[in-house]
Amino acid sequence: MSDETAGWPERAADALQAVRVARPLVHCLTNKVTVNFVANGLLALGASPAMVDIPVEAGLFAGAASAVLVNLGTPGAEQRAAMLEAAAAAGSAGKPWVLDPVAVGSLPVRTELARQLCALRPTVIRGNASEIRALAGAGAGGHGVDTADSVEDACDDALRLAQATGAVVAVSGPVDVITDGRTTVRVSNGDPLLTRVTGAGCLLGAIVAAFAATTRDALSATVAACTVYEVAAELAAATSVRPGSFAVALLDALDAVDAAAITARARVA
Amino acid sequence: MSDETAGWPERAADALQAVRVARPLVHCLTNKVTVNFVANGLLALGASPAMVDIPVEAGLFAGAASAVLVNLGTPGAEQRAAMLEAAAAAGSAGKPWVLDPVAVGSLPVRTELARQLCALRPTVIRGNASEIRALAGAGAGGHGVDTADSVEDACDDALRLAQATGAVVAVSGPVDVITDGRTTVRVSNGDPLLTRVTGAGCLLGAIVAAFAATTRDALSATVAACTVYEVAAELAAATSVRPGSFAVALLDALDAVDAAAITARARVA
Amino acid sequence: MSDETAGWPERAADALQAVRVARPLVHCLTNKVTVNFVANGLLALGASPAMVDIPVEAGLFAGAASAVLVNLGTPGAEQRAAMLEAAAAAGSAGKPWVLDPVAVGSLPVRTELARQLCALRPTVIRGNASEIRALAGAGAGGHGVDTADSVEDACDDALRLAQATGAVVAVSGPVDVITDGRTTVRVSNGDPLLTRVTGAGCLLGAIVAAFAATTRDALSATVAACTVYEVAAELAAATSVRPGSFAVALLDALDAVDAAAITARARVA
Repeated sequence: MSDETAGWPERAADALQAVRVARPLVHCLTNKVTVNFVANGLLALGASPAMVDIPVEAGLFAGAASAVLVNLGTPGAEQRAAMLEAAAAAGSAGKPWVLDPVAVGSLPVRTELARQLCALRPTVIRGNASEIRALAGAGAGGHGVDTADSVEDACDDALRLAQATGAVVAVSGPVDVITDGRTTVRVSNGDPLLTRVTGAGCLLGAIVAAFAATTRDALSATVAACTVYEVAAELAAATSVRPGSFAVALLDALDAVDAAAITARARVA
Repeated sequence: MSDETAGWPERAADALQAVRVARPLVHCLTNKVTVNFVANGLLALGASPAMVDIPVEAGLFAGAASAVLVNLGTPGAEQRAAMLEAAAAAGSAGKPWVLDPVAVGSLPVRTELARQLCALRPTVIRGNASEIRALAGAGAGGHGVDTADSVEDACDDALRLAQATGAVVAVSGPVDVITDGRTTVRVSNGDPLLTRVTGAGCLLGAIVAAFAATTRDALSATVAACTVYEVAAELAAATSVRPGSFAVALLDALDAVDAAAITARARVA
Repeated sequence: MSDETAGWPERAADALQAVRVARPLVHCLTNKVTVNFVANGLLALGASPAMVDIPVEAGLFAGAASAVLVNLGTPGAEQRAAMLEAAAAAGSAGKPWVLDPVAVGSLPVRTELARQLCALRPTVIRGNASEIRALAGAGAGGHGVDTADSVEDACDDALRLAQATGAVVAVSGPVDVITDGRTTVRVSNGDPLLTRVTGAGCLLGAIVAAFAATTRDALSATVAACTVYEVAAELAAATSVRPGSFAVALLDALDAVDAAAITARARVA
């Protein structure tokens, strides 16, 4: 689908087209705060979400899904068991899966769970700078779900985490840093309004999973997902400057975003 | 309230008026993905939602509510116990209750739960074609929460399920098929945008419960609920063509829809 | 920050400014129905929400947060344990915390939990008339999450509850009554559309917590929170008359509301 000699923007546009054609089934085990927004965002993009997160069913379903998202935002005991099941099943079935280590670092239950999940070798790990630093064994943890560390500070930690786990690591912020431990890519799209909507990061994690389902190379998939999502955010911010209407406009923009917008706006280096 | 000699559209309009006058208390035990949308949809329509889904409280509350919705989207262990309590209590109190067997078929925990719930004799069962076929003992299960089977394929299964359980069975799709095992009605309203919003089916299940609370005949209540909801979707689609703003417009349309719109647009056969 | 000799409207405007400068971390243990709306409302206002509600983590996090919200809307067993942890930790750390006793009275599990939580001395208790009456030992409980009692009927109960618990008690309704057991204040802002959106009360409880984090006097914080929130609702109602778009507009208005709107519109006595 994507031409290795093409630039990142063209490859991102191709990857979006691949998602819309394949309509991958994205199995989400995610937090109750933003689960509705994540499901609607995947639908708007053109993917097919399914939120199956109870034991027994989660493992069965992960093997049949196109990709799996494990987001640690509100990890109750039952969901923790289901997450471990799903991650193991995705690994066994060779399905890509994404770990979103929400608020890992200062909170012990999810931090221990994140360590167990890392050992199951996620395809991609997406978080903010504090979360990535904490997972790499550095940093003191963030301010709740927000980040106390800058993205550039987290670069070395992202590299180390990628090399230790074999995952592509994406650090979200004003500039996203994405690395597979060898190649590091920066995406500079997006809009500050994303920080005013709960679940903007959670939805990006789910969209990374959708792209990883249809673009085999995980680095390319992650770069494409970040680019498409953040270009959509720019389109939304052009119509709505307040957070309530921006969240609605973001869903609309995930439906509307196309190759022309991506190639015109993408800032990937 | 409704005149048996009147046509379906007029009876749907009367049934909507009955909901708005009585403002039935709809007790929902439903999934965490779409619970907010379901509550807001019921409020917009003019009903009164209450989401009480923990053991002990669920059984007590079901007996006092006007109708109960049991939706199997994310059936954790605690909620499963509460669902069985609520269904039994609704039955004992003679209150109508609706079963929405989300993703039943391929997922074993909810499939077993759905069987137990069917034995408690739901008033209405509402699902997509795959779910109804699976519940009737046919079909191989759907693509997650979406359907792999067509509505017309599911007609015979719907009939059999209605006869076996005593429930009115509604199969949702581009054309809805609704049967009590003797009379079969088709509703052809709606808009494809409904498939782009998570919880569009869940909300319909809840609205069926609201109508069943105020229209004694369950077949009439279900036909009216499908008609009103899908006419509202048409009104919403006339103002919003993208999924984020369509979902907001759908809530507005559930508030705005009236007898004139229903009688002008209803396509019921 | 606030001048004791200034009027309530000016103090509310000052208190809003204090929230936006400090961006308090509001730790929410709240129901799954409206948790997304609560998080987005806090973000829109300028506060920082974090929904940490599993045992072990909840107690640790409450001690580090700026304020805590405990909302009893869907109190599963795991969350109940976390709520007791968080309330105790907030008390030990001297952090303000708000109890929102959703549907207390007729439902036994949450009613018993509310009694245990009251013994931990919440800073503010915010509910509707039925809930406050039930918590004060009067009344027969409401119609689900709605209220069967009028606010004025609940005045004496609010006073008694404030005196018994040491909390500021806020009874929400067309006119809010807020008392610390000595001084009683009435806020007459708001719009009936608030009753058409699920979580309008839940979000107010969270906003009270945000204000209590930055305004030391709990009575002033609660009056300011109610005033700012309800003025924002009036701004939203001026642009949207249907419930779906009103909910979006309310989030936008929480971002837009400013000192000029508050001093022009506040009706506090």
